[in-house]
This record gives sequence, C-alpha cells and structure tokens, in this order.
Amino acid sequence: MNSDFLLSTETARNLYHDYAAGMPIIDYHCHLDPKEIYEDRRFENITQVWLGGDHYKWRLMRSAGVAERFITGDASDREKFQKWAETLSLAIGNPLYHWSHLELRNYFGYDGVLNGDTAEMVWNLCNEKLKALSARKLIMDSNVQVICTTDDPADSLEWHKKIAEDKSFSVQVLPSFRPDKALGIEKADYPDYLNRLGEITSYAQLLDVLKTRLTFFVSLGCRVSDHGLDAVPFAPATDEEVEAIFQKRLGGALPTALEAKQFKTALLLALGREYHRLGVVMQLHFGVIRDNSKRVFKALGPDAGVDSIGDAVSITDLAAFLNALDETDALPKTILYSLNPNDNAAIVSVMGAFQTGEAVSKVQHGSAWWFNDHKRGMIDQLTNLAAGGYLAGFVGMLTDSRSFLSYARHEYFRRILCDLIGTWVENGEYPNDDAALRAIVEGVCYTNARRYFKL
Amino acid sequence: MNSDFLLSTETARNLYHDYAAGMPIIDYHCHLDPKEIYEDRRFENITQVWLGGDHYKWRLMRSAGVAERFITGDASDREKFQKWAETLSLAIGNPLYHWSHLELRNYFGYDGVLNGDTAEMVWNLCNEKLKALSARKLIMDSNVQVICTTDDPADSLEWHKKIAEDKSFSVQVLPSFRPDKALGIEKADYPDYLNRLGEITSYAQLLDVLKTRLTFFVSLGCRVSDHGLDAVPFAPATDEEVEAIFQKRLGGALPTALEAKQFKTALLLALGREYHRLGVVMQLHFGVIRDNSKRVFKALGPDAGVDSIGDAVSITDLAAFLNALDETDALPKTILYSLNPNDNAAIVSVMGAFQTGEAVSKVQHGSAWWFNDHKRGMIDQLTNLAAGGYLAGFVGMLTDSRSFLSYARHEYFRRILCDLIGTWVENGEYPNDDAALRAIVEGVCYTNARRYFKL
Amino acid sequence: MNSDFLLSTETARNLYHDYAAGMPIIDYHCHLDPKEIYEDRRFENITQVWLGGDHYKWRLMRSAGVAERFITGDASDREKFQKWAETLSLAIGNPLYHWSHLELRNYFGYDGVLNGDTAEMVWNLCNEKLKALSARKLIMDSNVQVICTTDDPADSLEWHKKIAEDKSFSVQVLPSFRPDKALGIEKADYPDYLNRLGEITSYAQLLDVLKTRLTFFVSLGCRVSDHGLDAVPFAPATDEEVEAIFQKRLGGALPTALEAKQFKTALLLALGREYHRLGVVMQLHFGVIRDNSKRVFKALGPDAGVDSIGDAVSITDLAAFLNALDETDALPKTILYSLNPNDNAAIVSVMGAFQTGEAVSKVQHGSAWWFNDHKRGMIDQLTNLAAGGYLAGFVGMLTDSRSFLSYARHEYFRRILCDLIGTWVENGEYPNDDAALRAIVEGVCYTNARRYFKL
Repeated sequence: MNSDFLLSTETARNLYHDYAAGMPIIDYHCHLDPKEIYEDRRFENITQVWLGGDHYKWRLMRSAGVAERFITGDASDREKFQKWAETLSLAIGNPLYHWSHLELRNYFGYDGVLNGDTAEMVWNLCNEKLKALSARKLIMDSNVQVICTTDDPADSLEWHKKIAEDKSFSVQVLPSFRPDKALGIEKADYPDYLNRLGEITSYAQLLDVLKTRLTFFVSLGCRVSDHGLDAVPFAPATDEEVEAIFQKRLGGALPTALEAKQFKTALLLALGREYHRLGVVMQLHFGVIRDNSKRVFKALGPDAGVDSIGDAVSITDLAAFLNALDETDALPKTILYSLNPNDNAAIVSVMGAFQTGEAVSKVQHGSAWWFNDHKRGMIDQLTNLAAGGYLAGFVGMLTDSRSFLSYARHEYFRRILCDLIGTWVENGEYPNDDAALRAIVEGVCYTNARRYFKL
Repeated sequence: MNSDFLLSTETARNLYHDYAAGMPIIDYHCHLDPKEIYEDRRFENITQVWLGGDHYKWRLMRSAGVAERFITGDASDREKFQKWAETLSLAIGNPLYHWSHLELRNYFGYDGVLNGDTAEMVWNLCNEKLKALSARKLIMDSNVQVICTTDDPADSLEWHKKIAEDKSFSVQVLPSFRPDKALGIEKADYPDYLNRLGEITSYAQLLDVLKTRLTFFVSLGCRVSDHGLDAVPFAPATDEEVEAIFQKRLGGALPTALEAKQFKTALLLALGREYHRLGVVMQLHFGVIRDNSKRVFKALGPDAGVDSIGDAVSITDLAAFLNALDETDALPKTILYSLNPNDNAAIVSVMGAFQTGEAVSKVQHGSAWWFNDHKRGMIDQLTNLAAGGYLAGFVGMLTDSRSFLSYARHEYFRRILCDLIGTWVENGEYPNDDAALRAIVEGVCYTNARRYFKL
Repeated sequence: MNSDFLLSTETARNLYHDYAAGMPIIDYHCHLDPKEIYEDRRFENITQVWLGGDHYKWRLMRSAGVAERFITGDASDREKFQKWAETLSLAIGNPLYHWSHLELRNYFGYDGVLNGDTAEMVWNLCNEKLKALSARKLIMDSNVQVICTTDDPADSLEWHKKIAEDKSFSVQVLPSFRPDKALGIEKADYPDYLNRLGEITSYAQLLDVLKTRLTFFVSLGCRVSDHGLDAVPFAPATDEEVEAIFQKRLGGALPTALEAKQFKTALLLALGREYHRLGVVMQLHFGVIRDNSKRVFKALGPDAGVDSIGDAVSITDLAAFLNALDETDALPKTILYSLNPNDNAAIVSVMGAFQTGEAVSKVQHGSAWWFNDHKRGMIDQLTNLAAGGYLAGFVGMLTDSRSFLSYARHEYFRRILCDLIGTWVENGEYPNDDAALRAIVEGVCYTNARRYFKL
C-alpha cells in the first residue's frame, strides 16, 4: 500500500497527488462527540481507539468466528487486539483492510501488514505513538476545516459553544439537527423524549418547539439536518388528523402503522419547509433495518454491529415526498442516502426531476454509505451519478464515523474517485483537459461542499 | 474521441470497423414526427435542434444549477447554447457528453471539445452547416433503412402514406401502434380520447375499433406495437367484469385501482392475441414514474425532464401475464423493457421460459433504455442477456428519440457492443472465430432486426 | 481455452495451478441420483449425457429458435446434438459455452470448438470415449471426496446404505434432508405426501415424524438440509393456530395465503431448532418462480427449463426469521441463497448480524446459483461477500447439478476466484503474502467446507 495505492493510471496519479490530496476536509456528517473534541481526548492503547465502539470491526470478527469475549467481552485489550489482527489479516476485499492499514500508515507511521505475527510489534508501536496523539491533533493533522456533528434537538450544544469560544482551535465544529426521536411516535419511550423537549401538549406545539430549537442550532452555525428513517414516509393527512394521532399517543396508545406513517410524513414535510426557509440542508437516510439480533441488542444495546441493509425503498413514495415540498417551492437542498445499493439508479433519476437553478445539484445522491462504503460501492454510486446526473456538482465524501482516525476514509474515497476519472480519461471517454479535470476533482473533494453548505 | 473511441482492443477495433460500422440502421422504435420527415424539416440554429425538446439536456442543465430561463425560458438561443456548452463541458461520465460530441463530429465535422470557450465557434460552425442539412438528409447520411415511428390508433397516418408515395425517398417510414390512451381508463380525459376513436358504447366495441385500426396500421406496414406502462398489469377478470368496469367509466365514475388493473390486463391480453394473429411485435415498456414534479408539469407539460425510474416491477405479474398468452399459443413476439435496471436479470430469466421455435429469441430483452441508455447500462443489459439468454439473437439498438441527430446513438451502441465482445475474445472467453463473430455482430447490429420484424 | 483460461494475471495463474487446482471437491449440494452412483451408470451417447435432462441447455436452444422436436421431442439423438452444437457455437458470454467446452476437454480430451461443422467429429469422439466412462469413474477422475445428494424425508436411503457398504468406492455419498413436500401445505397432493410419511393426524405428529426421519438421515451421515422456498416465510403463529391450520388441511380445505405462510414459518423454525440441536446445516433457497409456462409444464412436467428468478425477497422477513431462531440460541449454521442477484448485498449484511463464535462464518451466503451461476454472477457474489463479510470463511462452490460431468463447474469457479484474488493482489489491494493467499484459496476451495460440514 504505497503512495500510489489504488491509482492505476498516470492520470489518476496526477489527479490525486496534484489536486485531491491537498484539499482540506469538510466532514459534513459524522458522529464525533463534541465533548471529546473540546476536552481533546487521549487514548491509552490502540484497542481503545479501534475496537472500543467500532461495530464494523465487531461484525468482521464475529464473521471470522471470534468468540464475543474477545470482541465486546472481558478479554484484555491486548488479547482483543490479537484477535483483531488475526481476523483482519485474511479480510481480503474488505474495506476494513484498507481503512486500517491507511490509518496505521497515516497516524502511526507503520507501512507494514497487520497480522497475528506482527500484532505485538504494532501494538507497542501504536501505543507509543498514541502518547503524542489526541482528538484535536488527529483532526488538525488530517487537514480538517469543518466538522458537522450529529445532535438531538434537545441538546444544549454546550460543547459546540465552548469549542467556538476556544481560540486555540481553528476547526469549525458545527451542530447538525437530528430530530429522529421527535419523529419516533411508535416508540415506547416517546413520551419520555417529549419531556426532554419541554411540556408538549399538542402537535402544533411540538412543531413550534422544534422550530425554535432549529433556530437555536442555526445560530450556532448548523448548516445541515439529518433524518435516519427506515423508509421515506409518504401518507398525506390533514392537520386535524395529525393532531388526533398525536393526541392519541399522548393519551398512551400506540399509533397504527398508517398513523405513524401519516405523522412522520407531516412532521418531516413541516421540517422540510423550515429547512428551506432557513437554508438548512436536509439529509434523508433510509433503507436500514436496525438491531436485527434481539439477543445482541439486549446484551449490548444499539450500534452493536447487528444492523443491516433494508428492503429497497419505495421510489414512488420518495418521488411523492419530494414533490410535496417542491410543489410549493419549499424543497430545501436535500441529500438522499439509501443503504440499499439497488436504489442507486432510481434515486439519481428521481432527484434529477427536482433540480432547479436554486443551487448546483440542489438534490444530491449521498456518498456510498455504511455497508456500501467500500471500493465497489463508491464506484457504483459515482458511476450512477455521473451517468444519470452531474458528478461535477457532487458534495462528496463524509465519514459517518465515531472515530478520530476515520479521516483516512476521505483519502480512500479520493483515491477511488481519481482512479475512476483517470480510467475514463485514459480510455478516451473524457478529454485530458487539465483545467476541467482539476475543477471536477477539487469540486468533489472540497469546493462543492464549501459552496453547498455555505461555509 | 477518435475513430477508435471506446474500442480498447484490436479485436474490438476490427469488429467495429469491418462489420458493425457499415451496417444500415433499422430504427424500430423512435418518436420522430412523420410530418417533419415528409416536409424535410430544416433548422435555423443548433439550439433549435439540440435544446428545442430534448429533456435529457434540460435535466442535465438543471442539475448543473442553470436557471430555467436559459433552459426552457425566454433567453436567446445563443444564450441557451452557451449555458449548455458550459454544462456539458464538465459532464464527465454522462452519455450526453458522448452523444453530443459524436453528433458534432458526424454531422458538423467538428472534432474538438464543446465548452464555454469554444461555444461561440461551435455555434457559428453548426449554424453554417445546418443550412445544408435537413431531416431527410440527416436520415440518409446516417444509413437508415427503416424508421418505425410511434402513433396513436386514432392517427390518420396521412404523413406515412405521403412518404410511402414519395418515390424520391427510399427509407421506409412505418407506423407503430401505441394505444396507451385507450388503456388509460383512470385518466380524467379518457372519455375525450374515446371520442377520438368514434362513438364507443361498450368495451367489446372498443376492442373492435382497436382491431380495425390495427389492421389499418398493418396495411401501411406496421410491424410493431408499443405500450408505455407504469408496471405490467396482471389482474384477471371475466369479460362481464371488464365490461362493467368500462360501463362504470362511461357513466363518469373513475375506476378503483384494482378495476383499472383488471381493465388494462384484459385489454392488453386481447391486443396481445391480435398482435400474435397479425404477426405484429409487442413492445412493453415499464418501470417508469412520469411527471414527478407537478410544478414543472404544470408549467411545461409532459416530457419536460421530470420523469424517473420507477420501482422494480413485479416479476410474478410479468410471468403470469406472459403465461396468460403463451398458454393458448397466443403470445406474440414480445420485447420487454424495464426502466429499472434491477429488473434486468429477472426479465432475462422470465423470457427464457417463453421462448419457442416460432422465432429466434421470440421474447427479447430490449436495449438499455432512457435512463439506462449509457455505457454502463448497455454493458449491464448485454452481459445479462448473454449470460442468461442468447445474445446472438438480440435485435439490438433503437433511438427512442425525437431528434434527427440521434442516430449517433447507434454508433455508440455498436462501439460498446464490439468492445465488450472484443474483450471477451482477447480474454479467451470466446474463440477468435471470424465467421462466428461476424454473424453475431452483424446480427445484433442489423440482420436480427431485419428478420425479427420481417422487413 | 488453454490451461490459463480466465487467469489474467501471474498471481491468478500461480494461485490456481499451485493451490486451487489440486484441492479435492466437496460437492455439498447436488441432485445426483444415488442409485446411478451405486449401479455405476453408463451412457450410450453424448446427447444422453448432455441433453437428457439438462434444462439449462433446453432453454438456450429454445432461445436460439430451435424447434421443440429437436430439444425434448422425437428427433434422433444425433439430430439433437447437431442443433445443440449449432446453438452453442454462437452462445457468446453464456456459461454453457464454458461449461460444455471444459467438459469436452476434461472428460473427452477434446480441445477444439464445438459447432455445426465439428459436431459429427465430436459426436463420434465422445461416444467412443463414453464406452470407458461411468458415473463412478467420472466422480473419481474429478477428485471428488464427498457428495451430498438431495433426498426426501420419506426416502429409504437404501442406495446410500449400499454405497456406504461398498468398499470398492471410497467417495462419501451422504443424504441431505429436503422436506419441501412436508412444507407444501397449499399443494393439492399434500395429503398424498403425508401418507408417504405414515399416518399423520396432527401437526405435532408430523413434526415428530420429521424429527425421527432427520435422526435417521443423520445416522447415515447427513450433514445438511435444504429448503426450496419461493420466499422466506415469516408470519408467527401460536402452536394452537398452526395445529388448527393443519387440521383444516387434513379436513380437505386449502389454507389461505396467510395460513400457509404461518404453517411454513412454524415448521421451518421447528426444523431449524432441530438442525441446530443435531449440528445439521440449514440451506435456504429462495427468490424463485417455478413452471412459468403452464403450457410447457403440462407437456413436460417440472424442471423443463421454464423457471425463473423471482421478485427480490423481503429482507425484513429474512432478518425476522433468523432472529426468531437466534433469539433462543437455536440458529443452526445456515446458508442463504437467493436466486435474485439484487438480494446479494442485503443478504450479506443481514447474515453479518447473526454471526457468532460458534463457527467461522456460521451464516453463509451461498455460491452464485442457477441463473447466477456464471462469471459475472460469481464475481458479484464473491465481491459482495468480501466487501460486506468475510470471504476467507466462505464454504465455496457446489454443482447443484443432475449431471456427472458438472464437476467442471468447480474448476470454473476456482479459476474465477483465483482471477479475482489475483487482480486484487496485482492491483495492490491485498499484499502478495503467499501463506495468507494459500489459506484463503484452499479454504474457499476445500478446507472451509470440510470444517463447516464437519467432514
């Protein structure tokens, strides 16, 4: 894995080294903890960094037949690292192989292979290097300019305020508005969540509170919202019907499936209009099934590596949802992410129907995400977007990660992007026009996001 | 984009230049206006040709953030061309990049790149060349032998008659039977459409009228019908039930979703039997959502660039529909096109179940279509067909276009076909047997369509 | 098609020739007839071997427009072979082209091409060679160690016993438990089938009988069960409800669609628990539509080449089904096969949620199957598995075949596997670490299956 990793043509190498590599990072969607950034968290050992909460790695270890004791159990950190090294060493074709080795190279200066034999050496090396590393140092070393975290409307954003006030740290750390819990009317703990927002006695009031919170988020630099959905809801209902559904829930009864869908449709549309008004980008993530193994969920809680791709989304509902906002000129800038890669082509075609002169690529197809965040998934997303839309307007990569080492995924994405473009150029499918290629590469790596998110 | 564009191996280059390039074109499915062919339409400027009604280009411009004024609005033709040139210049990976440059080369003798800087020069060049070009000249220069237009059963076909009588023009321009409006029982203007067909007072009579019109179409050389469907309907009903649904509609009431499906199933099956009797090929297009943005539809009407791929079709319904005809030996030659590329493998497998000795590849998987009409989409369609069916029997490319310049898409297809086959041969997956390769290439480019459509 | 067929890099060639080619075959899923193995069946001519019951070939001939008389009709074997040779010769991109030529090379020593001109020569050559060939010789020459046939619970397994007792034949021929008919409660002949199992008067008794039969199968070496499903059923019901559905069926009434689903869910879960208890692997095959053409089904019965890929499976149901077993620690080792290739990525992600330390890759994504059993299908399955799971734990290829010549498909798979891995290595995506590559290649070809099936 040398400096030309994944760059199979001369054009690709030039594009990457001359243009892509030097671009700063705008990580407009991640799950970093602002408290850890403010406090400049440090780590004792590489197992803590790598295996502490990374469900991608947990899954791979389980697939390799590693006992749970060595994954989330009471084995020592050194033992866990050994099992991870053994697992990773045979994980051919898996993005974790590349991510992990890129991280070893970029943050720990280790160019070799991690396997059962080298684990002891790598363990010592990394732990030694970790003494000089911290959250902020990792961020700065990665040339990050902006970080958008993921935050609940009820969050006080105190850590964002403190970071903004800290003149010693120049990276912008902005909150993102993620009101999933406010939409989760079918959940048992929904009333508890409402209590966190205040004393809510009506749907109209809920909406007011959310709007107030959104305005507060925007005052602290929020540029983007995020919605984690199973599927895109579209079941129109009148205001009265929605209020009745909400009152029923306040009364203690769970909604029917249709009622929940109607409620979510109404609230999501109302928020969409507000995003449009305030210039906040709307991200919609869908096509997911969470907590498949109830056994593991009971033992370890959410985000334990037992989620999966869901069924292909209803393209009909997606189109109707977008139209419901577009029809009244209230569609905000929107980024669509399905976890089911079968949706790629259809999503690109749907979003093409809602583009306007309001922005370059106002509706975006988000980067290959989670289970698709690998070479093949990225190529599929990029190729579909290029063929059915306008790749040059794409806002590009995000980490979606909880780890401070994950900026290596931007490098991984940029290499794959440059290799794809390089292949097209050398294959005669696009001219070797340096200015145009530079505009495209720098745009997708950095400048498009800067413009799109008004940074 | 030289003469070996997309031809990456020596075998590919030989196959294309020696066999594919010289084959005449049978464009068995397009949307050219026979009146314009008869009258030998001329064009004032390249914007008129390129941007007048091409919703593919409109979409791309909107995706690039171009204001509607420069797309369908009141900006000057020169201004629109400028915006188009700027948009296209960065449209890497998009088929419009290739189509447009192939058209510039083939029809205007321009080998360079179109971008914001060259726009003025290209504008002048094209407009000068357009003085010597016309509909018929473009068709003749493209080596077209047969054109099948798309016509409503109520159409008088007067222009087809006039073209057939005009001995100065040797290209066959044949009508195709497209009774979409006769199937559109759920549409508000359905009664108006019935009036165009005559005084229709029963379903039985509707069927009789359609059969009479089909016979008339066949008398003018019609070889093929076409149906634009959202999905393939399959909901069997008795004749009495269908008549009752029709009477209900005549009475002014709209059908339920199930009734509409039953009506369409019955009418489509009845037409299928008639196609079989008369030797007319049945084309079924499905997997589409039309007019997604109601805002744009209200402003610009249909075909304004706001359609999309629809949900994956029900393979169960498709199989049941084909069986309903096959079971009584009444399945006509049929070409299946889904706009959702996820359907490709399943469609090829379903059609394999209905092949008979009646024709070579009696049931066909249509060429990669509309949003799939690009390199990746074509390779996907061709590879699936080859792996799951019989590529050598494929009737090949069509333009599906409203433009007289779109014959460049046949060249694009042929290059991709030859490149794919060339790669297989050089990879040792098929022998370098010149006679067999020639038969396959010439077959897919031309001779299969000639035989299949009985031309 | 020389010895380096499909091996495009030096690494691929080394991996194949040094490691893959020499591995024995464990064919853990096929449809060979144990009686024919015991009796060491011989064949009169190549048409008998190739076209006697091979619906893959029948489909291809029909797609090429060959009349049924030359496929399943009364034409002579020589005439049928001629039509097959002519069909095959143009079947570029079809796996039958490769399988057939690999079989000609491996079993008949013919290195040339089969086409209309060479058919007479190949006919004579093969028929001469067939005199010295037999079922057992073909198996032994193919380096097969284990064959798992497909057997009904009602089967006496007499031929398996006889083979086991025959010391002259060292290959293990083990029964597999395939209770499809016991699950087929909606079928008209269900009562007849129950009679084959004994006098069954309750669901509880049916379950007991099946458990007894399974224990008997295990006593004869059964390691694996198999279920051919349209879709994965998930509709929970109480024991009482299931018993009531069964009693209704015993009373002569057919179940509703929901009742059938509830019955199948309950029985499949009950069998799953039993498989787990006895260490039997559960194979679930789904995403199929059978007997699409009723016309052909009436004429020729099942397995006549008119099946197809079915709709994409419900990933939600699949996840819920697996969870229902996992939740009580009763999920057996499971292999999931969908015939719809769109399901690949989602299946890999779902199975990742149910992996445990109980086995290496306890839940497996089965090899590209039936309509996906070709180069593209295999690469898709392998790449998805590698990117989303753990390729190194994969149990690899099976023939799923009725023919003694089909072991060539293992060679085909191994070549494609080595080529894919070789490309990754030469592309720098995995290190050229001989020991690791050997472990992966030998694992997928042989040792993983040996361990997984406890052979």
